[in-house]
Amino acid sequence: MDQRVEKRLGLKILSDRVVSAEEAAALIPNGAVVGMSGFTRAGDAKVVPMALVERAKNEQFKIDVYTGASLGPEVDKYLAEAGAIRKRGPFIADPMIRGQINAGDVLYVDAHLSHNAELVRQGIIGPIQYLIIEAAAITEDGLIIPTTSVGNSPIFAEYAENIIVELNIAHPESLIGIHDIYVPKAQGEREPIPLTNATQRIGEIGIKVDPAKIKAIVVSEEPDAPSLIVPPDEETQTMANILLDFFRSEIKAGRLTNKLMPLQSGVGSVANAVLDGFADSEFEDLVVASEVLQDAVFNLIDAGKVSYASATSITISEELQKKVYGNLEKYADKLVLRPQEISNHPELIRRLGLISINTALELDIYGNVNSTHVSGTKMMNGIGGSGDFARNARLGIFVTKSYAKGGAISSIVPMVSHVDHTEHDVDVIVTEQGIADLRGLAPKERAELIIENCAHPDFKEQLRDYYNRAVEATGNSQTPHILEEALSWHVNLAKNKTMKLETVKA
Amino acid sequence: MDQRVEKRLGLKILSDRVVSAEEAAALIPNGAVVGMSGFTRAGDAKVVPMALVERAKNEQFKIDVYTGASLGPEVDKYLAEAGAIRKRGPFIADPMIRGQINAGDVLYVDAHLSHNAELVRQGIIGPIQYLIIEAAAITEDGLIIPTTSVGNSPIFAEYAENIIVELNIAHPESLIGIHDIYVPKAQGEREPIPLTNATQRIGEIGIKVDPAKIKAIVVSEEPDAPSLIVPPDEETQTMANILLDFFRSEIKAGRLTNKLMPLQSGVGSVANAVLDGFADSEFEDLVVASEVLQDAVFNLIDAGKVSYASATSITISEELQKKVYGNLEKYADKLVLRPQEISNHPELIRRLGLISINTALELDIYGNVNSTHVSGTKMMNGIGGSGDFARNARLGIFVTKSYAKGGAISSIVPMVSHVDHTEHDVDVIVTEQGIADLRGLAPKERAELIIENCAHPDFKEQLRDYYNRAVEATGNSQTPHILEEALSWHVNLAKNKTMKLETVKA
Ligand SMILES: CC(C)(COP(=O)(O)OP(=O)(O)OC[C@H]1O[C@@H](n2cnc3c(N)ncnc32)[C@H](O)[C@@H]1OP(=O)(O)O)[C@@H](O)C(=O)NCCC(=O)NCCS
Ligand SMILES: CC(C)(COP(=O)(O)OP(=O)(O)OC[C@H]1O[C@@H](n2cnc3c(N)ncnc32)[C@H](O)[C@@H]1OP(=O)(O)O)[C@@H](O)C(=O)NCCC(=O)NCCS
Repeated sequence: MDQRVEKRLGLKILSDRVVSAEEAAALIPNGAVVGMSGFTRAGDAKVVPMALVERAKNEQFKIDVYTGASLGPEVDKYLAEAGAIRKRGPFIADPMIRGQINAGDVLYVDAHLSHNAELVRQGIIGPIQYLIIEAAAITEDGLIIPTTSVGNSPIFAEYAENIIVELNIAHPESLIGIHDIYVPKAQGEREPIPLTNATQRIGEIGIKVDPAKIKAIVVSEEPDAPSLIVPPDEETQTMANILLDFFRSEIKAGRLTNKLMPLQSGVGSVANAVLDGFADSEFEDLVVASEVLQDAVFNLIDAGKVSYASATSITISEELQKKVYGNLEKYADKLVLRPQEISNHPELIRRLGLISINTALELDIYGNVNSTHVSGTKMMNGIGGSGDFARNARLGIFVTKSYAKGGAISSIVPMVSHVDHTEHDVDVIVTEQGIADLRGLAPKERAELIIENCAHPDFKEQLRDYYNRAVEATGNSQTPHILEEALSWHVNLAKNKTMKLETVKA
Repeated sequence: MDQRVEKRLGLKILSDRVVSAEEAAALIPNGAVVGMSGFTRAGDAKVVPMALVERAKNEQFKIDVYTGASLGPEVDKYLAEAGAIRKRGPFIADPMIRGQINAGDVLYVDAHLSHNAELVRQGIIGPIQYLIIEAAAITEDGLIIPTTSVGNSPIFAEYAENIIVELNIAHPESLIGIHDIYVPKAQGEREPIPLTNATQRIGEIGIKVDPAKIKAIVVSEEPDAPSLIVPPDEETQTMANILLDFFRSEIKAGRLTNKLMPLQSGVGSVANAVLDGFADSEFEDLVVASEVLQDAVFNLIDAGKVSYASATSITISEELQKKVYGNLEKYADKLVLRPQEISNHPELIRRLGLISINTALELDIYGNVNSTHVSGTKMMNGIGGSGDFARNARLGIFVTKSYAKGGAISSIVPMVSHVDHTEHDVDVIVTEQGIADLRGLAPKERAELIIENCAHPDFKEQLRDYYNRAVEATGNSQTPHILEEALSWHVNLAKNKTMKLETVKA
């Protein structure tokens, strides 16, 4: 056996399970429910899925795939392309599987990321016949050490009938010790989760499994697919500055200190860019308690701004991968990766008092947020953890540029075409135009702030006009709407490629 | 001093604070933010608010009123009628204040009931100049003993600058010991809430306050306004039977035992009627962990079905008030009343694995639920705790009759006109027509179940027609909708007083 493999395979009785990717892939029955490691392109198995792609090209093969969150191209692009995915949950981001979902070829179950583990416990997700999990090592005492994400792997490992381990020897060995694996017991028999500080460790460094369940071990040297985020631009910089000023005013009001509260920042380019804005700020000793650590977090660690970061995955650009994984020791005492059930747990989000920053696709004048559905019908990515965080955070902030698609679309509409975060869950909205602090406000108070502070100038008058007529038409009711018109901006967009009314009139 | 008052006023230094309702009411400045005890017509102050009504008739007087939930007529009817409420939160139910809210005369901040305490801590609700709290007693060591609800009183008491106690000597003394007051510390300094079982006690029997804050004590003998729920009928009985059968199948599937899990049941006639259905069932040793205890819970205690009930309020009919409060000793060891921050806390709802049953106003074919807004614009009552429970429960069940207003309205529509509970939070739907178990399903799978199993026959074909055309029009996308038509059922209702299409064609 390759020395590097031997070093990573502590539990020697497993040596005879080492097989090729093809052999491992052959184990999985057609029609199976398969759990996979991986969260936002990090820590996913790669070579076994590619062997499944080959299988699917030659035989009738279709499986249900549940993961932590979105995976890299092996599954969400190539396995999808091969027509091998029947059902998928709980989060995606690849254009290939997105297209299939929106063409009705793949069933997609979008779900709060903290909810999956309970569904596995109840057998709603399952029975899971196989878990395919990427590992950095298997220790002598049989702990599976995850790699760059933890995701749902611990709960999958507990409930899966069989496990295929993809032992990735290209990941640095110093990943061992990064993870903190704590799995709550069944509901009703459960103790409080003992975490009272985002920097604390409460579990084990790996996932305890019955070695008999491990049916195959496949060696891999494939790196994670790098993240694809767009770098900050002038507008996201403006949004960051607006947010920093808001935090300053919260400090003045006595509601926050200079350390703020643990920060969660969502997936995507905008949330990353906004977080990046902290680099040149006066804020210090920040703690990140998030779901995904994107580039910005490592920049902030390097800049001495972030003292500790807790999450369930590390999803970074190619350049940063080299830097971080080439020198992980430097970050090791400032990092912890937890199961997503813990990183996203309402119990902890509420207890720790997180500040949560997530990106909206669109939002409406009353503060309802659509994170998932373009024009109410087409899935973008999914709700991910945004609901876990926004609902339970001390401060639930949503950011978005005020417009999309070069200005044809207003991100602020009369009524969102799909609701992921209700008016009850949205505290603060930030666009490049400004900020609306909605806390404690009634719907009509919110509408005025959102339109005046956050909407793009091109759409302000149109929004005001809708709002004023809705107030009139409903006799100034709690939440004025003209139902005939509430979704007309989206209809206009479909017909005329713009939400601007001039075009309709023209 | 009246002997009965003396007996209830343990802390003797407070004797000189006993004043008339008028004197107490005169203390509250115009424009103040006022916290009040009370939750769904239970445990609210009555005589001081009626003195405020008198004041408001004679002078310019308008205040912001925050409570646990809806109050009885003194505040939500008479004080509202007097034009003395500027802003109100977090829940209402009286037609008077509802009318004012929907006429734009009162600002209403509808909010998750578990969120209020954090907003008070942060000063978003506040500064609270006065708390008016109904008490059954003030103990020797200065604990204020609430009456038939706890609601937000503990957090209001902690943050209010001044407190007026309405000492209600008509409430039975045996209320002392019913309450379990536990208030979490500030976020970031907070320990896990130590409750691991709904029957456990973790706090004190009353609310600790600085006696210096108590500016007035007013004696009252007014009973709670009785609840106004409609008794079960044939259809709610059918819904109860459907639900019981569902629980039986869950037991067969190994997901529940005969004791089920702690049950939460929402406000309103329908949820009460459904819970009542347990009386003749084989289920035993049930635990209720709810927000409000309505009539059904006491019937189930009497029937030996419910062994313990935990909530934040007791809201019962006049008849049952006599029975329960006349004989509270009989129930005392089976009852606990907690702050609503605890009864509704996501940490505990998730940990204990509650089964939550709440009522929808309307829901759509993809499983989004509207609990609050009639036709998207007019406030009914508010979201109350339904979001706290549905999101975090082990099983989030929504019940509703399939139709309203004699059949003119379908409770199942293409798209809800307001979203309070998103598709991610709704596990099971029950109408008198049948049940849709949505767990683990993608939107289109849900639509077929909801239409076939839950819709009223009068609307089934119309729903199928919309759905099929939406699938066609969107190329079978994730969540098919025809945005031009999605809200047309509500528009039809406004124009033609029915959602039925025949009328449109006629
Ligand atoms: C909302 C979300 C898609 C934004 O992603 P982003 O990368 O930050 O933002 P972008 O502005 O680049 O938008 C992404 C795409 O959506 C499009 N878009 C943005 N707003 C839009 C709108 N109102 N209507 C239609 N399309 C819109 C953009 O044009 C862009 O399209 P492109 O990929 O074709 O260029 C992303 O944050 C997301 O999936 N959020 C939900 C999950 C979540 O919040 N998780 C957080 C917990 S980790
Ligand atoms: C939804 C809710 C209003 C239902 O109340 P209920 O008493 O069980 O049910 P009812 O069927 O009697 O409905 C109440 C009213 O709403 C009307 N209604 C019901 N469905 C309707 C619909 N789809 N469109 C318009 N009106 C509707 C009924 O006709 C009835 O009107 P009426 O008072 O004029 O007769 C009530 O449960 C609620 O406020 N829920 C939100 C808060 C909550 O769930 N809290 C739970 C945690 S404690």
